[in-house]
Amino acid sequence: MKFSASQIAALLAGTVEGDPNVEVWNVAKIEEGAPGMLSFLANPKYTPYIYTTKSSVVIVNNDFVAKEPVTATLIRVDDAYASFAKLLAFYDAMANQKEGISSLAFVSSTAQCGENLYLGEFAFVGEHVVIGNHVKIYPQVYVGDGCVIGDDTVLYPGVRLYRNTVVGKRCVLHAGAVIGADGFGFAPQPDGHYEKIPQVGNVVIDDDVEVGANTTIDRSTMGSTRVHKGVKLDNLVHLAHNVEVGEHSALAAQVGVSGSTHLGKHCVVGGQSGFVGHLHIADGSKFGGQSGIMGSIKEANQEFMGTPIQPLRQYLVSNARFRHIDEMMRKIEALEQELSELKSKI
Amino acid sequence: MKFSASQIAALLAGTVEGDPNVEVWNVAKIEEGAPGMLSFLANPKYTPYIYTTKSSVVIVNNDFVAKEPVTATLIRVDDAYASFAKLLAFYDAMANQKEGISSLAFVSSTAQCGENLYLGEFAFVGEHVVIGNHVKIYPQVYVGDGCVIGDDTVLYPGVRLYRNTVVGKRCVLHAGAVIGADGFGFAPQPDGHYEKIPQVGNVVIDDDVEVGANTTIDRSTMGSTRVHKGVKLDNLVHLAHNVEVGEHSALAAQVGVSGSTHLGKHCVVGGQSGFVGHLHIADGSKFGGQSGIMGSIKEANQEFMGTPIQPLRQYLVSNARFRHIDEMMRKIEALEQELSELKSKI
Amino acid sequence: MKFSASQIAALLAGTVEGDPNVEVWNVAKIEEGAPGMLSFLANPKYTPYIYTTKSSVVIVNNDFVAKEPVTATLIRVDDAYASFAKLLAFYDAMANQKEGISSLAFVSSTAQCGENLYLGEFAFVGEHVVIGNHVKIYPQVYVGDGCVIGDDTVLYPGVRLYRNTVVGKRCVLHAGAVIGADGFGFAPQPDGHYEKIPQVGNVVIDDDVEVGANTTIDRSTMGSTRVHKGVKLDNLVHLAHNVEVGEHSALAAQVGVSGSTHLGKHCVVGGQSGFVGHLHIADGSKFGGQSGIMGSIKEANQEFMGTPIQPLRQYLVSNARFRHIDEMMRKIEALEQELSELKSKI
Repeated sequence: MKFSASQIAALLAGTVEGDPNVEVWNVAKIEEGAPGMLSFLANPKYTPYIYTTKSSVVIVNNDFVAKEPVTATLIRVDDAYASFAKLLAFYDAMANQKEGISSLAFVSSTAQCGENLYLGEFAFVGEHVVIGNHVKIYPQVYVGDGCVIGDDTVLYPGVRLYRNTVVGKRCVLHAGAVIGADGFGFAPQPDGHYEKIPQVGNVVIDDDVEVGANTTIDRSTMGSTRVHKGVKLDNLVHLAHNVEVGEHSALAAQVGVSGSTHLGKHCVVGGQSGFVGHLHIADGSKFGGQSGIMGSIKEANQEFMGTPIQPLRQYLVSNARFRHIDEMMRKIEALEQELSELKSKI
Repeated sequence: MKFSASQIAALLAGTVEGDPNVEVWNVAKIEEGAPGMLSFLANPKYTPYIYTTKSSVVIVNNDFVAKEPVTATLIRVDDAYASFAKLLAFYDAMANQKEGISSLAFVSSTAQCGENLYLGEFAFVGEHVVIGNHVKIYPQVYVGDGCVIGDDTVLYPGVRLYRNTVVGKRCVLHAGAVIGADGFGFAPQPDGHYEKIPQVGNVVIDDDVEVGANTTIDRSTMGSTRVHKGVKLDNLVHLAHNVEVGEHSALAAQVGVSGSTHLGKHCVVGGQSGFVGHLHIADGSKFGGQSGIMGSIKEANQEFMGTPIQPLRQYLVSNARFRHIDEMMRKIEALEQELSELKSKI
Repeated sequence: MKFSASQIAALLAGTVEGDPNVEVWNVAKIEEGAPGMLSFLANPKYTPYIYTTKSSVVIVNNDFVAKEPVTATLIRVDDAYASFAKLLAFYDAMANQKEGISSLAFVSSTAQCGENLYLGEFAFVGEHVVIGNHVKIYPQVYVGDGCVIGDDTVLYPGVRLYRNTVVGKRCVLHAGAVIGADGFGFAPQPDGHYEKIPQVGNVVIDDDVEVGANTTIDRSTMGSTRVHKGVKLDNLVHLAHNVEVGEHSALAAQVGVSGSTHLGKHCVVGGQSGFVGHLHIADGSKFGGQSGIMGSIKEANQEFMGTPIQPLRQYLVSNARFRHIDEMMRKIEALEQELSELKSKI
């Protein structure tokens, strides 16, 4: 998609200074500009770049005064940063604009589809599925029997929803995410083999949730695995059966949460951290990357790190000491030696 | 799927007490009941809930005597817990009942398919594939050339079997599992680039194995990567080329096993643990979550934890001490000080 | 595929000793041979196995002199090891030989396809895609709008390229890899909810890169997430937005790299290691498995391990000490006791 400077100025209610017909098709930081790129200047620290940037168009604040010649076309607005953010959102929406139901998709006769559905090639929609309005289902997505998908939700290519999964409104599920596979439940038998415990629950994802690529969320044994409103999950995250993640919590890539653990609201979990099962984690808990959480946390808004976790401050001190553990041991040996010598003298 | 109380009672050879026509379509714990739910009461600790539960139907033991009015329809059986478990398995089987070969699937002309096959939309079955009886292949599955799939095995949507993969009977492979991708084998060259080492082996999965969503098992360089009978792998597990996992071992989510490492039988591996390559791990070894295993283990049935692993008991003691490492250092400094003062006195 | 001993000898310019018509269809180590297998003997240590191997054909050096009867057919060549490696590469190429555009694939009318394309069933190729020559796109692959794919590249089943992804020549992307999903960028708002930051950049993968199964590489916020020439990524690796991985670096399975971190050339990263964001890692850095890298590294060619990392030598010493931390504490307590007794005596 290409846009002219005048089209962009119209969108932002700004004024063009320079060639109104010059076109851009991508965005770049002002210091990394190139022909065809759109940049912005908001932070005065970056002002020198406006005289050297190769970007074709730069959005600037109304009060910007050039002190040297500028080759880029300028668009003057009240707030360059806010205008640029607005443009990005607009560009993103344009780039992801898709509509229509492909004749190469499969939709079961009992499925109900809302208005303005995009359903891509080789997508599968099972029995009794209910899909809201303005939903985008990319090619090769699997929507199992009895699933419910809220308005304005996007399922990227290869998302798999097992039967009876519920996804709220305005959710984004990235490619390869698997929602509703069987929980990992097996009963060990006296002879050492495992019997599978049927996993008959489902997964319920509330509104405004984002799920990263190849992330997996297992169905519960009974009841529902729950991901509450506004939760953000990065790529390759694992939520086991019967897990609950509270509103507006954010889990970075490769985090794993074992069965029946409940995270509170507004938690932030660093990448590759792991939780054992059956914990309760207080609201606002924060964990550094690679943390190992082996016990429940009752006090809200605390920060932790390490395996097993320690309060962040203590962890930092402990680790600083750990780097000197060899020296510690040598000090102890020296003390033993000295003390022994001292004793022999007395 | 809805079932009436009388249908359920017939299935369990139980007797109905209350409305035999009331219908249920899901299960819930008795304390979390709701209309349309089926619950059970076996543990006397939960008896008070039977008077308040909103579940429509509750399965109880024959000897249950109500001491207050009960609104739910009761089904009386010899063993409420066993009956409920039986129902779950029945429900699970019903929910996953699929059959027929979709006209939107692709099956190569040289493939051999057994009886009663379910082959979903947009599934691909390559040349010379051999599929047993009662196999379920969900939509969008890829079965590469020369694969063999045993009776009663289920491949959920988006499973990928590279060429020549062998899967036993009664296996369950969850969505997005990738079996048989090239092992990570590259020979570093003098100029610093890597030459790919051809990976011409395959993966052989024995009977009764479950493979979690988005788990990856690489083909061997030569011979076979082996997953033995009854092994259970959780989601996002990685088994590298030439790995072997012994019978009835269970690996939790996000575990990684490097090339040519052999795990014995009945091992249990906590989530996010990692094994370096070329190890031999004795039967019955158990590892806590996030363990780092860097050496072979010869003695069977031992428990370990930590990175690098220590025997579990030692790990727990070491970690308890680690929390006081700062105090240790301060004690050492105090001792040094005191000793120095003492010396000056003598 | 079956090959006769005489066909193999012709390919290797070798001479047959024994039955020239015996056929083989797979390869095995000489000590693990079986009928129908091809093996080789190069290392004299393995010579005894040639008299007992069950392999049908064995490649040997021209100067091999049998001292006992040999049942396998022999193929004599100048360099048995090099000949075997050549055969493996040949076999691998044969096994992966695919061609033609399936009538069950979808190709947008604006896509440009090079010569000799393999495009499998249920694959999707979006608008304005440009595909080079001799490219193999397996079934169920998704190539989003505006993607560019270089000559001789292979995309295995279920690979997903989001819009505008660029993949170089001779790359191999394994099944389930997701390239170009949105970076994990959200701006926390005063009321605690997150606003999505549009991710309008892309991913650029240079020539000769291999990407493992179910690995994820996120698109940048602006500009490009970059994977340079010759990089090898194992399975289930995560590269966040704006990450850069330098030429000929190798990342083992389940490694995670947080946003905007730049790895230099020729780095080697052990499995399950994690990098926090915004780091610069010097060329030739090496990290043991499960490392936690929390700071930039300026000096090239150093080895590290641990969380947080320490230089490898120091890590090994620290960990050896850590195993004795309980003993250290007890020594300190003993010293305190002794010193106290000593003081009381003076």
